[in-house]
Amino acid sequence: MNITKAVITAAGRGQRTLPLQTLIDSDGTEKSVLSIIIEEVLRAGIEEICLVVQPGDERPYAEEAGHHAGRLHFVHQEKPLGYGHAIHCARDFVGNEPFLHLVGDHVYVSRESEGSACRLVKIAQAEACSVSAVQATRENLLPYYGAVGSQRVRDRADLYRVDTVIEKPTPTKAEQQLIVPGLRVGHYLCFFGMHVLTPAIFDILAQKIAAAGDKGGVTLAEALHELAQREQVLALEMHDWRYDLGVRYGLMTAQMALALNGQDRDEVLANLLALLAAREMGRNRK
Amino acid sequence: MNITKAVITAAGRGQRTLPLQTLIDSDGTEKSVLSIIIEEVLRAGIEEICLVVQPGDERPYAEEAGHHAGRLHFVHQEKPLGYGHAIHCARDFVGNEPFLHLVGDHVYVSRESEGSACRLVKIAQAEACSVSAVQATRENLLPYYGAVGSQRVRDRADLYRVDTVIEKPTPTKAEQQLIVPGLRVGHYLCFFGMHVLTPAIFDILAQKIAAAGDKGGVTLAEALHELAQREQVLALEMHDWRYDLGVRYGLMTAQMALALNGQDRDEVLANLLALLAAREMGRNRK
Repeated sequence: MNITKAVITAAGRGQRTLPLQTLIDSDGTEKSVLSIIIEEVLRAGIEEICLVVQPGDERPYAEEAGHHAGRLHFVHQEKPLGYGHAIHCARDFVGNEPFLHLVGDHVYVSRESEGSACRLVKIAQAEACSVSAVQATRENLLPYYGAVGSQRVRDRADLYRVDTVIEKPTPTKAEQQLIVPGLRVGHYLCFFGMHVLTPAIFDILAQKIAAAGDKGGVTLAEALHELAQREQVLALEMHDWRYDLGVRYGLMTAQMALALNGQDRDEVLANLLALLAAREMGRNRK
Repeated sequence: MNITKAVITAAGRGQRTLPLQTLIDSDGTEKSVLSIIIEEVLRAGIEEICLVVQPGDERPYAEEAGHHAGRLHFVHQEKPLGYGHAIHCARDFVGNEPFLHLVGDHVYVSRESEGSACRLVKIAQAEACSVSAVQATRENLLPYYGAVGSQRVRDRADLYRVDTVIEKPTPTKAEQQLIVPGLRVGHYLCFFGMHVLTPAIFDILAQKIAAAGDKGGVTLAEALHELAQREQVLALEMHDWRYDLGVRYGLMTAQMALALNGQDRDEVLANLLALLAAREMGRNRK
């Protein structure tokens, strides 16, 4: 199995402008979030990239992609019918091949130089099936993520065979259906925001999208759950970090994480302490 | 003297996109930098606002101004001839009145709810002359700012009569010409990024712009220096904070300052500690 294409979704309400924000990457250079995500994809050896955007957003996206703009294919999500629909919009671009999928509003910070997406793609190519990156996540964060129920693949510390996928499960539902043997108590395997998907996902998405009609809202989780009933779907546990830019202070937190992971670490820590000191003096002076 | 107009400059190279970035304000709501600056102006009682932008930038600026868009007047700076020229572009908008001027790439965090601009405007209206907001700034930061030489106005702790203005002075020049009696050793009064200016500034700018020709680069500092030879110019010392978004990690630092000044203070401090702890554990695990 060879993976040559990537799909980045960036059409979600309230998430459209996040890829256009500017951050300083771990390498110390200023980039748009979009460029940081594109570089994550390129490090995985993938050069054909499809961006699913709202109509009219190509121009700012192409601008913020800088010298990567030439390799971007744009596909419109004409109506805000949700995440599953956005992925399905890339069907013609992908064709009958497996593909890497990343969300456009996350930044990934890797412990290793090869990057999280690269590791995911390698495993998917070796195992020749869909693989979702997941992270052991505390129960209180379940309302924010899709989560998987799975069994550990024998002799592999970080690889799981997925049997169940639920979008934003309640704690009760998670306890009943998503317990993963060997995981710390109160923890579940939640989506990390990147997947390798086989093209079989498109038929499943198409059925669910047709059934939902104008109401929309089909999730990737429900399609993946069905995919896992038809063919092998694995989950790869990540020990890297992902930062959702869409949450409050998401951009600041991601920036801090990038800085602390890079060459500017000492400078940023010093600035931070200076700021805190000034604030505290300010408070006392008030 | 009544001040009813404001001019915000946002056409500088490398600064154009800063007002379009998103931050969470001290009040806990998400806004563009532009909106934060506009609200600073509105709190000063000023409702007519002129934005000096590069041609083609109106649309994104109007979008990021949200419900304030209706009160914005756009003026183009057709050529990148510098800061003084950008202000001069607003001459027709301003007419023969005093006006408030803010730079589009700073965020102001005030100790008081009324805001820094409001305080500046009140003083300017009371004194009926140009007033530059300044801050006592350590000598090592002189390369980043315009600085003033001045005498303290009798019986006023925070008000100075300006006699000299120099853009980014060398330490030697500052020591010779910008010593302000009563200021801590090694400190100078540097621009805070907001001014109230009388319309006399435009004639001075026009002369200097004509003399500079295509070379451009006329500074506000040199025009203000000349204004101070012709009429009274005061400097108001600010104890608030200004954050230059154009420096490295400027956005992150400004976001942190806004958060620490507002209702989300405890949440942000807790997140920060969690992030630092995760990073440190990560380093040890590597």
